[in-house]
Amino acid sequence: MQNVKGTYDYFGKEQALRRRIQDTLRDKFELYDFNEMVTTELTELDLLTSKYAGGDEIIKEMYQLTDQRRRRLGLRYDLTIPFAKVIALNPGMELPIKRYEIGKVFRDGPVKRGRLREFLQCDVDVVGVKGPEAEVELMQLAIDVFRSLAIKVQLKWNNRRFLGEIMAAIGVPASESLSVMLTLDKLAKVGEAGVKLELAEKGLADEVTEAVIELIALQNPTFEEVMDKYGLRGSAGALEVLAVTDILRKLGLAQDCAFDPFLSRGLSFYTGTVYEIFETSNGFASSLGGGGRYDAIIGQLVGRDDTEYSAVGLSFGMESIMALLENRASEPSSAPVILIPVGVTAAEMLQAAAELRASGIRVKLDTSGRKLKNILASVAGSGIRYALLLGETEWKAGMVRLKDMAERTEREVSLDEAIYVLENESCPLLFAN
Amino acid sequence: MQNVKGTYDYFGKEQALRRRIQDTLRDKFELYDFNEMVTTELTELDLLTSKYAGGDEIIKEMYQLTDQRRRRLGLRYDLTIPFAKVIALNPGMELPIKRYEIGKVFRDGPVKRGRLREFLQCDVDVVGVKGPEAEVELMQLAIDVFRSLAIKVQLKWNNRRFLGEIMAAIGVPASESLSVMLTLDKLAKVGEAGVKLELAEKGLADEVTEAVIELIALQNPTFEEVMDKYGLRGSAGALEVLAVTDILRKLGLAQDCAFDPFLSRGLSFYTGTVYEIFETSNGFASSLGGGGRYDAIIGQLVGRDDTEYSAVGLSFGMESIMALLENRASEPSSAPVILIPVGVTAAEMLQAAAELRASGIRVKLDTSGRKLKNILASVAGSGIRYALLLGETEWKAGMVRLKDMAERTEREVSLDEAIYVLENESCPLLFAN
Repeated sequence: MQNVKGTYDYFGKEQALRRRIQDTLRDKFELYDFNEMVTTELTELDLLTSKYAGGDEIIKEMYQLTDQRRRRLGLRYDLTIPFAKVIALNPGMELPIKRYEIGKVFRDGPVKRGRLREFLQCDVDVVGVKGPEAEVELMQLAIDVFRSLAIKVQLKWNNRRFLGEIMAAIGVPASESLSVMLTLDKLAKVGEAGVKLELAEKGLADEVTEAVIELIALQNPTFEEVMDKYGLRGSAGALEVLAVTDILRKLGLAQDCAFDPFLSRGLSFYTGTVYEIFETSNGFASSLGGGGRYDAIIGQLVGRDDTEYSAVGLSFGMESIMALLENRASEPSSAPVILIPVGVTAAEMLQAAAELRASGIRVKLDTSGRKLKNILASVAGSGIRYALLLGETEWKAGMVRLKDMAERTEREVSLDEAIYVLENESCPLLFAN
Repeated sequence: MQNVKGTYDYFGKEQALRRRIQDTLRDKFELYDFNEMVTTELTELDLLTSKYAGGDEIIKEMYQLTDQRRRRLGLRYDLTIPFAKVIALNPGMELPIKRYEIGKVFRDGPVKRGRLREFLQCDVDVVGVKGPEAEVELMQLAIDVFRSLAIKVQLKWNNRRFLGEIMAAIGVPASESLSVMLTLDKLAKVGEAGVKLELAEKGLADEVTEAVIELIALQNPTFEEVMDKYGLRGSAGALEVLAVTDILRKLGLAQDCAFDPFLSRGLSFYTGTVYEIFETSNGFASSLGGGGRYDAIIGQLVGRDDTEYSAVGLSFGMESIMALLENRASEPSSAPVILIPVGVTAAEMLQAAAELRASGIRVKLDTSGRKLKNILASVAGSGIRYALLLGETEWKAGMVRLKDMAERTEREVSLDEAIYVLENESCPLLFAN
């Protein structure tokens, strides 16, 4: 027996941490006025393979299946296409739509560290807002989320339209524009030499290749330098960048959200701002999330011309976040108290449990039938603070023995007194709010 | 474009209610000391089709697929087999294990009201407790959950071993025992006549058929009546029933959890107590959940003889619960306040939003650019209590206009004062705790 390659089960400490991260994301998503949507995992194959959908690379990695009636289906490989489907199937939905979804997606691709075949995506999207406030609100959200998770990050951003204008100014043919952008995006990873090597394979005119090399030779150029170098002052892309820059500066987020003229991101459907989030204090290389503006794809999938579906999205990478936080894993939230029957029947133990739980106290039951000494020995190492010993004589007198495992004290109390003590036990918080 | 038959997307009111139900389940599961487990949805085909797994009926409805390397996979059709897999793959897990999982399962079967192809299962299981305290703890949990959801229920229970002993006493051949049990289970649904019809098709000896008919002719028999009629006093099954009865009576749960000698449940793997939960005040016919003891299957799947994997499980039916609660659906939790820029820039609106959110206040932004009159008209019908108007002059003076849509009042306040008012807004509770 084995797991399907690239798929994992989660339980114990690991799942407790995953749940806490999801709760943090969910709370912040709601704070920023996103509502939850849960879309189907099984999807008509036609939708997933639509020319407006995820593109050839992703489709190659799609799990396909047929049902008993030989309908052709696929498992969703992202949460964006199913979201567009919901918009298409529910034409009455009022814009703007702000939705989030945390759900499994499936990709039959190469398995690497952080790349799984079945994994959780955590997406927020705003549809129906053209202005830069949507982009910036998602940036605020991203910074807020990682502050809550106590992870130091910087969000790097760029603009595809502006980058396209640079490509045109340099003389890159439109057909090669996206491909060159994606090569530029690798600058931090493969260095100038690596970029040059990739450029050489594209068959560009020599002067174009040289102009691209001149661009990457700029060391951390500011937006203004790049804009002026290519005469783009006043261009549509430059104005978009300026609008976002201006808001970020006013919000005091210019350090947290840094313009990076080489950032591009893989998907071809981005039309404006793109962003990607990186950890900054431990040199963790993987992106912790990313997204951008994609104004065309929902409208194309929905197939209606009467409405503009301008959209901005942000996806948080659960697996990268987990990889970073692994060392913070704590025990799954456990009961503060264990009930140990030392003379009473199962009925009496369950009755005591019911009273504690009615007061909201999580209760563990000892059902092992082992010797008290042995039970207490394993409780001592388990992180459970209290043991409630239920003896027959005491129980009949309405009393129990409350053992504080940390203080090594024991006293006879009424069940109500025990409840009072346990209710005032506080749980340690993993994250700041 | 369409959804795959038998699959649904959830959003708006419906998803808000689904989320609240899941939160209630999760909170109660944790209160009863279950920890979360998330298993893989993609599963090796061999595991799902193992002779110890879900049986022919379920396997027929399993979605099968192959990956790029032609490995044969299936989508999980329940949460029990994946749970057994986790136990098998992690031999170090300490018993007892109490886990819950809330996750999607897939069945390519006939689609009816309440029977979907992709649906949520909500399962709790205890592994490693032989005694009746495990069964009864799950019964307590079930009663507690539905009390929290404000649904009046009765849990009906029986014991497969005891039922098997009755079958043997009556003379039903062992090979027909399960089949006759499942026919008895339909008594409430198809009546005596329907049961007789089904029995006739089984080719049992006449005197056996007559004896079964005599059994079902008993009107709401008590456990003691049935036990004595078939001379089962002291039998293994009868003792199990007695043990559970005794505890339920002591806990005051004998009314909530009623013994029903005809209850059986579909799956062949139950070995002792079985139960099923029914709504009692509105005549809602579908089961709201069910489960039972299955002492053999995990051990068989795990394939180890050195450990006993006695197990009891309970599954809550999300779709039935939703069908019952649909009329209670409320708006998705919405922001108590909307920010409307009347003169300020997007940057200033986002700055105000950041301050409110930093105080934990969910904020909606108006990004429509419409006239104030029109914006306020739609806010008035939306259930949002407050509007915060951001005018240029006031903003520069550190002030905003807070409009109470319910009271139809408006006053100029500092942002801090507005936060104070909004923080003290309470949200209505849908369910009791």
